[in-house]
Parts: sequence; C-alpha cells; structure tokens
Amino acid sequence: MTRMHKPFRARAALLTTVVLWSCGAASAAEDPAPAVDPQVLARIRDAAMSQDWAYRELGELTDRIGPRLSGSPQLTAAIAQLATAMRGTGADVSTPAVKVPHWVRGEERGELVDYPGRPAGLTQRLHLTALGGSGATPAAGLTAPVVVVHDFQELEARAAQVRGRIVLFEARFDQRLADNGHAGDAYGQAGQYRFDGPARAAALGAAAALVRSVGGAEYRLPHTGTTLWHDGQKPIPAAALSAEDADLVTRLAAGGALSMRLTLTPRTLPDADSANVIADWRGRELPDEVVIVSGHLDSWDLATGATDDGVGVIAAAAVIETLHRLDLHPRRTVRFVGWTNEENGGRGGKAYFASVEHALATQTAAIESDEGAGRSLGLIAAVSADSEALLAPVTEALRPIGATLVSRTQGEVGADIEPLQAAGVPGFAPLVDSRHYFDYHHTAADTLDKVDPVAMNTQVATMAVLAYYLAELPQPLPPQPATPRRR
Amino acid sequence: MTRMHKPFRARAALLTTVVLWSCGAASAAEDPAPAVDPQVLARIRDAAMSQDWAYRELGELTDRIGPRLSGSPQLTAAIAQLATAMRGTGADVSTPAVKVPHWVRGEERGELVDYPGRPAGLTQRLHLTALGGSGATPAAGLTAPVVVVHDFQELEARAAQVRGRIVLFEARFDQRLADNGHAGDAYGQAGQYRFDGPARAAALGAAAALVRSVGGAEYRLPHTGTTLWHDGQKPIPAAALSAEDADLVTRLAAGGALSMRLTLTPRTLPDADSANVIADWRGRELPDEVVIVSGHLDSWDLATGATDDGVGVIAAAAVIETLHRLDLHPRRTVRFVGWTNEENGGRGGKAYFASVEHALATQTAAIESDEGAGRSLGLIAAVSADSEALLAPVTEALRPIGATLVSRTQGEVGADIEPLQAAGVPGFAPLVDSRHYFDYHHTAADTLDKVDPVAMNTQVATMAVLAYYLAELPQPLPPQPATPRRR
Repeated sequence: MTRMHKPFRARAALLTTVVLWSCGAASAAEDPAPAVDPQVLARIRDAAMSQDWAYRELGELTDRIGPRLSGSPQLTAAIAQLATAMRGTGADVSTPAVKVPHWVRGEERGELVDYPGRPAGLTQRLHLTALGGSGATPAAGLTAPVVVVHDFQELEARAAQVRGRIVLFEARFDQRLADNGHAGDAYGQAGQYRFDGPARAAALGAAAALVRSVGGAEYRLPHTGTTLWHDGQKPIPAAALSAEDADLVTRLAAGGALSMRLTLTPRTLPDADSANVIADWRGRELPDEVVIVSGHLDSWDLATGATDDGVGVIAAAAVIETLHRLDLHPRRTVRFVGWTNEENGGRGGKAYFASVEHALATQTAAIESDEGAGRSLGLIAAVSADSEALLAPVTEALRPIGATLVSRTQGEVGADIEPLQAAGVPGFAPLVDSRHYFDYHHTAADTLDKVDPVAMNTQVATMAVLAYYLAELPQPLPPQPATPRRR
Repeated sequence: MTRMHKPFRARAALLTTVVLWSCGAASAAEDPAPAVDPQVLARIRDAAMSQDWAYRELGELTDRIGPRLSGSPQLTAAIAQLATAMRGTGADVSTPAVKVPHWVRGEERGELVDYPGRPAGLTQRLHLTALGGSGATPAAGLTAPVVVVHDFQELEARAAQVRGRIVLFEARFDQRLADNGHAGDAYGQAGQYRFDGPARAAALGAAAALVRSVGGAEYRLPHTGTTLWHDGQKPIPAAALSAEDADLVTRLAAGGALSMRLTLTPRTLPDADSANVIADWRGRELPDEVVIVSGHLDSWDLATGATDDGVGVIAAAAVIETLHRLDLHPRRTVRFVGWTNEENGGRGGKAYFASVEHALATQTAAIESDEGAGRSLGLIAAVSADSEALLAPVTEALRPIGATLVSRTQGEVGADIEPLQAAGVPGFAPLVDSRHYFDYHHTAADTLDKVDPVAMNTQVATMAVLAYYLAELPQPLPPQPATPRRR
C-alpha cells in the first residue's frame, strides 16, 4: 500500500472505538427470519479457512513471477496468470486495459566522501534505494553537502542552506505506535516526509533529497515507495536511506559538515499497457449490482511483494474460489478486482471508477485488503453507525476465528477503492494485525516466507463472509456521505 | 568471529555445566586473607560499569572508519586510531607487523534464468554475497544448472550430478538452539557448509557453490564469512544466498530443473601489511608475566563490524583504560591485544604466538571477547576443575551485574587465542548473551545501533575483574592440558 493520509483517519482511535458484537449478535440469532442465513455464513467461513488455494496461488505469483512494478513484464505476466486462475473458478473474467506510469530503477549508490574526523582517503558506503518517481543524478553521480532536518518546520527554518545541497529528512517510524495497533498512523507520520519531502526540498532548490526509511526494521534495509512532485516540478533525485545509514549521517552531521556522493539513474518511460483483472461471480437475482472484493496486483520492484499486496489480492480472489467451491450465488454479483498500479499512480482504481461513475448505484460496496499478511481481527468499515449495526451477523459468523472487531471510520480504507468511497460507496477492509507489516514493507524482504497460510485464510474468511452477506442482503447498505477526495 | 568447530566444544553442554558460585564465594569471603582484595575487584567492576570510554571509542571506530577487512585502508586506519587511543591510557603501545591475506570483493549478482513454470522472458533476481576467499566467475558471469543438497551425505550421493553445476547447500541455522543459549552450536552446525561445502563441491567438479546464509535473521540479508579450500585447490566462485533466496531456489528446484547466472568478481591480491595492536599495562612485580585481554580489530567488509568484533576489541581495550583511571597496577602485566585478521586467516593470533612461543611460561592466561554485543552472563573458562574453583572471587565480584555463571570447557574459547590455548595457556571469554548475535553476524546490518552501551560495559567489567584477578594472584593458574590444535 502507498497511502499517505492514514494519520487523518478515524483509525487513529482504533482501540477505543472497537465494538464487540456479542450483544447484537445474540439479538440477531433470536431473529426468527434473519436476512442472511447464518448457517450459510458459517459454511463460507469454514470453507475459506480450510482451503489452500490462496496460499498456493500466492506461491505461483511470487515464486514464478516475482516483483510486479507497473510497466514491467512481470506485471503483465501476473495479470495473465491471475486471469487464467480466475477463469478456473467459472467467473466471468475480463481484463480492461489501463495505461500506467512506467518508472524503472537504475544504478543506486551513496557514499559519504567527507565528514568530521574522517581519516584521509576513507569514505563510508551508504545503503539506499531510489524512491518511485525519483529523478536522476548524472551517471557519474553528484557530490554535495548534506543538510539534516527532522521535520518541515526545520526545513523552512533552514531554507537558505538547502540550495544545491542534499537534504535528509530524519523522521523515525514510531514502532511503539505500530506495536499498539496503530501501524497506519506510524506510517502516516513518518511517511509524509517520503511523500512530500523531496518536492518541498526541490522547491527550495535542493540538489537531491533523502528520507530515513519508513518502517520499523533494523536490518539495513532501505524502504522504497512513491514520492510526489508538485505540478510542473522537475523531479530531483530522491532516495530512502536505511535506518542505520540515516543514524550514521545524523551522528556525523552533529560534528560538522559532511558531503555525499549520490548516484541514482532511474528513468521515467512512456506510459505502459496494463489492466485490472475483473472476475464476476454472477448474482442470482440482481447481477448488475456488485459487491467488490479486491487487492492490488502490482508491487514494488525490490521483492516479490508477497505481503504488499500479493496476500491481499489473492485472498480477495479466493473469495470467488470459495463461493465457486460451495456453489453459492448470492443475490448480487460478487466482483473480484485485482487492481493495477496501486503503488505508483493508482491508475487501476481511477480507471475503474471512470468506468462505473455513470451508474454508481450498481456499486453497492467495496472491500479491499492491503494491510499486509497479518491475521484478520475483524473489519474496518467506512459506514454510518446504522449500517454498522447491520454487520453483526458478519462478525458473529467470524467469532470462531476471532475476527470480531469492527473499527468504524469516516475515511478511506483502501487506496484503489478510494474514488468509490469518495463518491459514497461503503468501503470495507479486513482489520489486519499490522504490527510487523512495516518491517518488510517496500523492501527486498517482502517475500513469501512472511506469509502465514492460516493468517492469510482469516483474511479470505473475513472477506468471503462479508462479501456474501452484503451481496445477499435484501437491500444494499445506503450510500455513505461522500468522503473528501484525497489527491 | 569465524570459528567452525563450536559444535565440538564442551559448550554444547553449557546449561548443564553452569556452576553458581554462591557457596564457594561465601567460603572465600570468610577467608581471613583473600589472595586478591575483594574491595578492589568491586571498585574495578564499578569503574567499568560507569565509564563511557568504551562506547565512545566504538563509535569512533565504526562511524569514522567503518568496515575493516584485512588489507583495507580502513583496517590500517583503525590500527593507528586504536594505538593512539591506547597511548592515551599510559600503556606501553606497540604495533608489531603482521602480513595478512588481501581478498577484495567485486561485483556480485545472481539470477535464476530458468525454472519450472517460468513465464517466457522472466528471471528472478537473487540476493547473495561472495564468501571470503571465493574464486571469480568470468566477468560476464557463468550460467549453470543448480543442484540443491541438504548435507554432505546428499552431496556424496549425488556426486555424479555435480560436475559443471552450481551446488547450493541448503542447511538451516537452528534459531531454537540459539534462543536456548546454544548460538555457537547453531553456528557450527550450519557453518560447516560455509567453511567446507565449497571445497567439497569443488573437489567433485562443481562450477560454483552457494550456501544458505548462516544466521537467524529473515531480512533478505546474505551473511558472508570465510570458506576454506583444500591444499592446492583452485577456489571456485562461492557465495551465501539470503535465507529467502535459498528458500526460493529450494522450492523451485522441487518442481524441476533450474538454471542460474552467477557473477562474482572478487580478487585475491598479494598479502598486505597489517599489525596487531598491543598495549601493556605494566605489572608492579612481575612485569614479564602477562594476562592477555583481547578482541579482534578486523571485520568483514559489508558493515562496520560493530558487534564482530568492534564491541569485543574495544571492551578489552577499556580494561586498560579502567585500570588506568583507577591507577591500579596488579602484580603481572595486563596486556591488551587488538588482533588483526581474525576473520579470514587468523594471522594476528598466529604471529603473536610465534613471538612468544619461546617463553610460553610468561603467558599466564588469555581472554578474548568475540561473541557479539550481548550482556555478559559470566565466564567461559578453559581450565581444570581445580582452577575453576579459584575463580569464585571473580564471579562474586560480578554478582551485582548478574555475571555469575561459569561455563567450563575443554575447547577453544577465542580464535585468536587458540594457538596459546593449544599450547596449554588457560583461556577465557565473557559468557555473552548471543541469542541474536547471528541475526546480524557478517551482514551489512552489523552496525553501531546493535550495541547497547550498558551490555557492552558488562563485558568490560567481566574482563577487567577477571584480568586484574588473574594478574594479581600470587601464583598464576597452572597450565592446562594442551587442547588439540584445530586447523
């Protein structure tokens, strides 16, 4: 995932707004004619938990294809592979074309060539990786003094020192927040410097910008991710330093001037052909009304993207496979979408929205999983309190797997479904244990071993029960107040 | 550290042979005339725990100099810097010359170019790093099929399939052992394939050899380290794969043939000039008799070697600084040695042994710290049971910092002091919490942030109290039965 606005979400108050549904569920159980048969929901949960289709498909995606950055042949292969897999479920599969940005990583090297107390002739090598959308240095690199700032105020206060220099944004990911269930907030706090720091440094004339890696790990791994430029702005070279190297630069800078040689040679190519993968599991009564269940198929290029978002997109696909295996067709269509280009453009979500904008009433709900491979604790629901009350049968069905919490929010819950949410479509996500998601997020270590198959299945079960329930309800949830569009 | 023989050490029975010294200590306290004043030992402990010289010097070593592989200008600078620091303590400092191997890393790339189920045109990039002493591929790389074996028996059983191929030794580091206090044994079990696997594969005609990284971490970090060649054998290209990439190769190989392109271009240059750093803190009565306190100053080249063995060598140096600060001169000389070339040759230890072999009776004991930055739990002592009983005042003095355990062994406790031990000199090491040492060991992540200053000080205190005590005893410990020389 690549969102920047989590600090603004209602999820900030996750632990305090969690609602346990036992009372509501008891009432629902006493209801003589529940709108959706609880026995069916239980069967869906059990089928989702007992399948191994999801983990096997994730293995195919990551082991045989690998990283899937927009514009890469790997993403094209992944689209074909997933479309084939979905045809195997009997769903109606299509792959509507989407043009995507095509940024490719080049050489990347950093070296401290001067610093206080440096023995003559020595340099210190740094571990870094270009941010998506970074500009390039000359092929031989650029050498410039380094200015370390800790926040935007300090950047502004030292604006006169920035021109022609390399700015390092030294803002730490707060692992304590992540450990307490607020990983998204920790990501938002530190991530703002990755998203906006390079553009703001460029506006002040900086030669290049570095950010401390946004994530909780300490294994000298740089964390890539998108950086955003102002309209008309020429991108400057921008990279993430590993936490250890950010520490080193900061310690040395405290003792005097230091100078860095930086080489980054990424290129931005013409937009490339890509596609969303759509698989419709046809509704038995109202096939034109859809409940979306989704994740994104693209990933960053440093690893196989097993947790961002292989696990989410395949767990969502497994919802269709589960309904297929049970031969269950709810009232409305359950539409799987494997989004393209979530990481560096969001073009998949935007293109889909454009295709349905004329008939938004058909889009009754949208679910996206993009918070990593942790087990599901329940639901995030961008709905009104009245709608939330209707979800009790879902959490009751999920009680045996411990996914009983509902975190209600007014904000966006998935980058790809954000355009839909902004137009009033109720948005949902599994509420995932993300305490260690950002250890690996956007690094070379986002690989299959980070996925526990049982935890993955709790996401399948959560989305399958929720999607079926929403698609089976006699009336869809009412539209939500439109959330403010992000950017 | 780089030793390979830990599984053969008596330390395998660490937890069962640990001796708590409270009874012995009580007797010692009742002794009307202890051989060494317990008050002095307590003062040394407290002075060691309250200083920050050690952590500051470690910062100088790692931040300003960085990696210190034998033959590098960084190691030369480190020798000069440490000699200067030791002169500041008033010790007699010398830097006797030692010729060391000079191996330099080159390009290193690995890529799976064919594997079962590969979509046309795709390859998978692998994370790997050359092992010290590796031979080189052609500059453009070599491409060959991969044979995965799990142990030497399987290698021999499949000997006919090895010629011209790339052999991967897939042997896992057993983190459960490490978590239970047997990190050295876990290292020995998996490490044997790094030490001996490439040579054995080369003997069967392999084109190259890979080993699964020896260590407990899962952050796609390859762990370098020495590999050993048979006499007269031409080194083949040899590298460590990250755990994740070893997993990937092993999973794909289970489905059929796969092929790898491997590029490694290290070079072995003529032996280089180097030196041990020796600082003698002169004994007041028997200055020609010495107690050695030591660590190694060289490191691998991927990181700044903060835990292997910056922390050990500087903690040992801080013993001298502590005695200097307290103005305490025990009966014998306390000799600090900062060894050169522990990692890929052991030339420092061998050269020192050659220089004292004619007068071994002057070498009354040798201490080395090379087990990482964990806190000290007590002592490892390669001594007889009778000598062990004499150590009670040491552990009693360390009781307030919890370093009360004694693990007695018949084996080597430090690679650089092994020649001395093999000749009968009693050998000692701090007994260090090494549960997480191998997460970072020989990787790019062995950096200063992995060192806790208080934990480091427990090593200073342990070595300072032990060294003073041994140097102050009226009679030195008797020589030990010579341990069998390793290699």
